[in-house]
Amino acid sequence: MWQQPTSLFTDHYELTMLQASLHSGAAHRPSVFEAFARRLPDGRRYGVLAGTGRVLEGIKEFRFGDEQLRFLSDTKVVDATTIKYLEDFKFSGNIHGYAEGEIYFPYSPVMIVESTFAEACVLETFILSALNHDSAIASAASRMIASAGTRPCIEMGSRRTHEESAVAAARAAIIAGFDSTSNLEAGHRYGLKTVGTAAHSFTLLHDSERAAFEAQVASMGVGTALLVDTYDVEQGVRTAVEVAGPGLGAVRLDSGDLVEQARWVRTLLDDLGNENTRIMVTSDLDEYAIAALQSAPVDAYGVGTSLVTGSGHPTASMVYKLVSRKNDAGDYVDVAKAAKNKVSVGGRKFAVRLLNERGRATEELIGVGEVPASDANDRALLTQFVENGVIDEAFTGAAGVHRATKRHHDSIQEMPGSSRRLQRGEPVIGTRFIDEN
Amino acid sequence: MWQQPTSLFTDHYELTMLQASLHSGAAHRPSVFEAFARRLPDGRRYGVLAGTGRVLEGIKEFRFGDEQLRFLSDTKVVDATTIKYLEDFKFSGNIHGYAEGEIYFPYSPVMIVESTFAEACVLETFILSALNHDSAIASAASRMIASAGTRPCIEMGSRRTHEESAVAAARAAIIAGFDSTSNLEAGHRYGLKTVGTAAHSFTLLHDSERAAFEAQVASMGVGTALLVDTYDVEQGVRTAVEVAGPGLGAVRLDSGDLVEQARWVRTLLDDLGNENTRIMVTSDLDEYAIAALQSAPVDAYGVGTSLVTGSGHPTASMVYKLVSRKNDAGDYVDVAKAAKNKVSVGGRKFAVRLLNERGRATEELIGVGEVPASDANDRALLTQFVENGVIDEAFTGAAGVHRATKRHHDSIQEMPGSSRRLQRGEPVIGTRFIDEN
Repeated sequence: MWQQPTSLFTDHYELTMLQASLHSGAAHRPSVFEAFARRLPDGRRYGVLAGTGRVLEGIKEFRFGDEQLRFLSDTKVVDATTIKYLEDFKFSGNIHGYAEGEIYFPYSPVMIVESTFAEACVLETFILSALNHDSAIASAASRMIASAGTRPCIEMGSRRTHEESAVAAARAAIIAGFDSTSNLEAGHRYGLKTVGTAAHSFTLLHDSERAAFEAQVASMGVGTALLVDTYDVEQGVRTAVEVAGPGLGAVRLDSGDLVEQARWVRTLLDDLGNENTRIMVTSDLDEYAIAALQSAPVDAYGVGTSLVTGSGHPTASMVYKLVSRKNDAGDYVDVAKAAKNKVSVGGRKFAVRLLNERGRATEELIGVGEVPASDANDRALLTQFVENGVIDEAFTGAAGVHRATKRHHDSIQEMPGSSRRLQRGEPVIGTRFIDEN
Repeated sequence: MWQQPTSLFTDHYELTMLQASLHSGAAHRPSVFEAFARRLPDGRRYGVLAGTGRVLEGIKEFRFGDEQLRFLSDTKVVDATTIKYLEDFKFSGNIHGYAEGEIYFPYSPVMIVESTFAEACVLETFILSALNHDSAIASAASRMIASAGTRPCIEMGSRRTHEESAVAAARAAIIAGFDSTSNLEAGHRYGLKTVGTAAHSFTLLHDSERAAFEAQVASMGVGTALLVDTYDVEQGVRTAVEVAGPGLGAVRLDSGDLVEQARWVRTLLDDLGNENTRIMVTSDLDEYAIAALQSAPVDAYGVGTSLVTGSGHPTASMVYKLVSRKNDAGDYVDVAKAAKNKVSVGGRKFAVRLLNERGRATEELIGVGEVPASDANDRALLTQFVENGVIDEAFTGAAGVHRATKRHHDSIQEMPGSSRRLQRGEPVIGTRFIDEN
């Protein structure tokens, strides 16, 4: 996925801390770090975890080659002792977490990294980058899917975000239930279904709209989607039907009052004998616009900007905190509690989703210590991804995306119906903390 | 910069259009595409163009190797004729545009791509990804710099955005005037200055705050910055001074009421004899928080989330439109005008910034046809980056960033003082269109 090792996708201070802790000896203290969000974006009722597979893929490439070491040495980011340590760097610890695609709430321990301080510390920036970006996209995408009901959503926001973010955004959208993406690299990298037909420029390139439609149909077949709003929509629809006939796959509308337009375009298509020609809409849609279009005869939604920017919340604001570490006596100390600053809960966590007899989620139970006895319905939320540095490949690549898509689908089914409401509100289920220490 | 060719950072429909236009023959029509923003983010007074250097670096790698062609063929994205065309793909046209770092306004032709339709069309997604992301960051960063006055701003938002976006964001922040970044990959790739010291976890790892400070000072020297708010800030400052002495470089505050806290921490440091110890603040700052802190004795701002998310506007919303193309008679036709849908201005543009006798910008002049006679003060805005497919390397890599930083600095100097106001308003200078056709 990356040209070079991923090790420099890292804040300078991770390596400064590494150097100072190697100096004090504390670098080797067994430590537990936890990634979590202190809150959901304002008014959102749940978050969707994404990026886990990318974290695992990135950790595999997280090593310091000659080029990286030369940079760190030449720029004096760290000293010779630290360079020596980094030469052999390979993460050797354990990583547990919520499955990718899982729903999360404030303080859900979505990823738990256990290793030496040194190893867990230097992964911080990369882990947070992947989880914060991808979860922001998946969380927005899941709401769009809820709004769209059974109608397919297509991800087409690549041009509105960084070219690599676009690939990750397409992946996150698919996890949250999108049907397909316009992004070819995402298709290539993760085996995702890609789709796309034509832009206004294609019509403008030709001497007439008819010439453009004829060219597209001749090359792509009548099953293609024709963009009918470059000039006059009614004329565009009529020309499209004349050129492609009753087998025309779809027309695409990219401007104007889509609700009203979809209605009369549907009527016009039906009148022309094109009952099976679908209507696709694509103009700056977000979850609210999709909801507003549910009463209109639309067959598919293309979503761009609002998806890749997290629909107002482009980052999931997760943090990565040291929650426990051993002291010199070899005992684990829950450290986060001690700090008066910025609340976090110390200790290595467990997490369970409580379900009622109908299989509906009722509460998130997070705690430190023994997992309490539970009903048969309850579902433990932590999965092991890495054991002694060995990554479980089942959670990476195309298989990982497929698994995450299923996880999200199943988790949403489990949630109370209120999770599908767009209105601002509290998290859809509450979280209870237990600390037996 | 990229592991593989950049050619699949592309929407599916670019290649569908390529196929259909190869079929109709229109693919080879000489065409002019233009990237521009129809508007600035609501209330913003100017935009900052960034990403140009990355576009050029990416175009260099924009080719279709065996792996890409096999994917396109296996998934039937395009037909055999199109695969054949792509085998030899190499952009052979011209690219002009605003210099990277330049200020832009609605409809400024920030990038003009002239080639065949085929060549210009397939670059669309990648060009927009780079310009939209990087310009969004640079535009937000420039406002932060205006708020910070002479105090340095440090970019530290990597963890809040995709790992590759983080590198591009660091680059864009430096162009807009940031002093340095925490992102090591950005330092490595573009020769940028990186900085960083320690997080709360470093203090929590040690048995006491004193032990942590001692470890850091022993390893990094007294000139380091100590994070003093893990427990009690006053005690933290006292311990920091005891451990490091009068040469302590800086203390960092990452929470609480920063204005009030900075004041009494300054007094405390001075009382303890540490007049030269600087105060750095870093808690969820944006341009407004920075402005509010200008009356407080703060020496440096660390900016994270709000920078890498464009401070509320994570994309610059630029579009890439066909504005002119030849017909079969060999004459250029301005096409965008003909379209009733979504306003754009047809034709190959010129762009000039009019300056008054004191060198202050007064108006943006954009037009089609002959560039009007101008005052000696006026400044033509279009630069050539690519000539017949040959990229001018002066605009890429570390040299490109350096040049863009200078361009932004000079362009801001030229703007009326109102550009430095944070209040919402109209673009700081108006734009006039001339069309001699």
